[in-house]
Amino acid sequence: NATLRAELGRSTWKLFHTILARYPEKPNNLERKTLETFIQLFAQVYPCGDCARHFTGLLAKYPPQTTSRKAAALWGCDVHNKVNEKLHKPEYDCSKILTDYDCGC
Amino acid sequence: NATLRAELGRSTWKLFHTILARYPEKPNNLERKTLETFIQLFAQVYPCGDCARHFTGLLAKYPPQTTSRKAAALWGCDVHNKVNEKLHKPEYDCSKILTDYDCGC
Ligand SMILES: Cc1cc2nc3c(=O)[nH]c(=O)nc-3n(C[C@H](O)[C@H](O)[C@H](O)COP(=O)(O)OP(=O)(O)OC[C@H]3O[C@@H](n4cnc5c(N)ncnc54)[C@H](O)[C@@H]3O)c2cc1C
Ligand SMILES: Cc1cc2nc3c(=O)[nH]c(=O)nc-3n(C[C@H](O)[C@H](O)[C@H](O)COP(=O)(O)OP(=O)(O)OC[C@H]3O[C@@H](n4cnc5c(N)ncnc54)[C@H](O)[C@@H]3O)c2cc1C
Repeated sequence: NATLRAELGRSTWKLFHTILARYPEKPNNLERKTLETFIQLFAQVYPCGDCARHFTGLLAKYPPQTTSRKAAALWGCDVHNKVNEKLHKPEYDCSKILTDYDCGC
Repeated sequence: NATLRAELGRSTWKLFHTILARYPEKPNNLERKTLETFIQLFAQVYPCGDCARHFTGLLAKYPPQTTSRKAAALWGCDVHNKVNEKLHKPEYDCSKILTDYDCGC
């Protein structure tokens, strides 16, 4: 069902970008490993099978950048733009990613 | 910011319950381990710090049930109800969880 898939996608991207926008500015090795493993497992459990397969391919080609909050958030923005491209959606301007997704919560 | 926290919560619960409603009916050991690790890491990276701390406590008290789709989905419904209780929100009727979150996507 395409509507449910789109709704799930919107919810998921929101969580995904907010996690990256709140990731430590100077992560230690454990925090880096935690985020990297989380993203890999996320790609495995994501409920839309086609999406998960495509996303796993993107992760292999563009591995998560976890050296800093900014690197992680920009990486997340880039992979979302790759999905946008595939779906013929407009490109998002990644220069505003950290302010757009700062939940302060 | 309480509004952003609530929005993030709604998005996150949607993803969370949909993952559980699409989890295999008869998971193998690797699938069980994947889901369990995913949930633990999720609690570590969740961007609302207070929520994450409270949820980590719930996970310790009510460990994820991963023997089957039904067990996992009902467990997720129960822990969400524990959060609802804390926030004085109405209890959700868990008997409809698998149909409410079947994205078929
Ligand atoms: C990991 C993943 C893989 C997916 N793969 C597929 C797939 O293969 N096929 C499929 O049909 N659907 C897929 N989806 C769903 C798809 O990406 C959309 O979520 C869905 O189509 C709804 O699109 P939307 O136009 O509402 O905007 P969405 O793409 O859901 O984006 C939501 C909002 O985020 C903002 N945004 C847009 N681009 C970016 C960006 N680059 N960075 C930050 N914010 C941005 C915009 O404000 C947008 O309105 C996938 C979703 C996820 C999470
Ligand atoms: C892991 C986690 C921990 C959180 N901890 C806190 C916290 O400590 N403090 C805080 O202020 N906020 C917390 N939140 C946010 C909070 O749970 C709500 O998401 C937020 O307050 C918005 O509430 P809502 O009324 O829109 O419904 P939500 O609780 O977001 O639920 C969304 C929808 O899911 C359905 N639903 C309700 N209960 C269930 C259930 N048991 N099972 C399945 N579906 C259900 C209903 O249709 C509801 O409208 C947390 C969120 C998450 C994901």
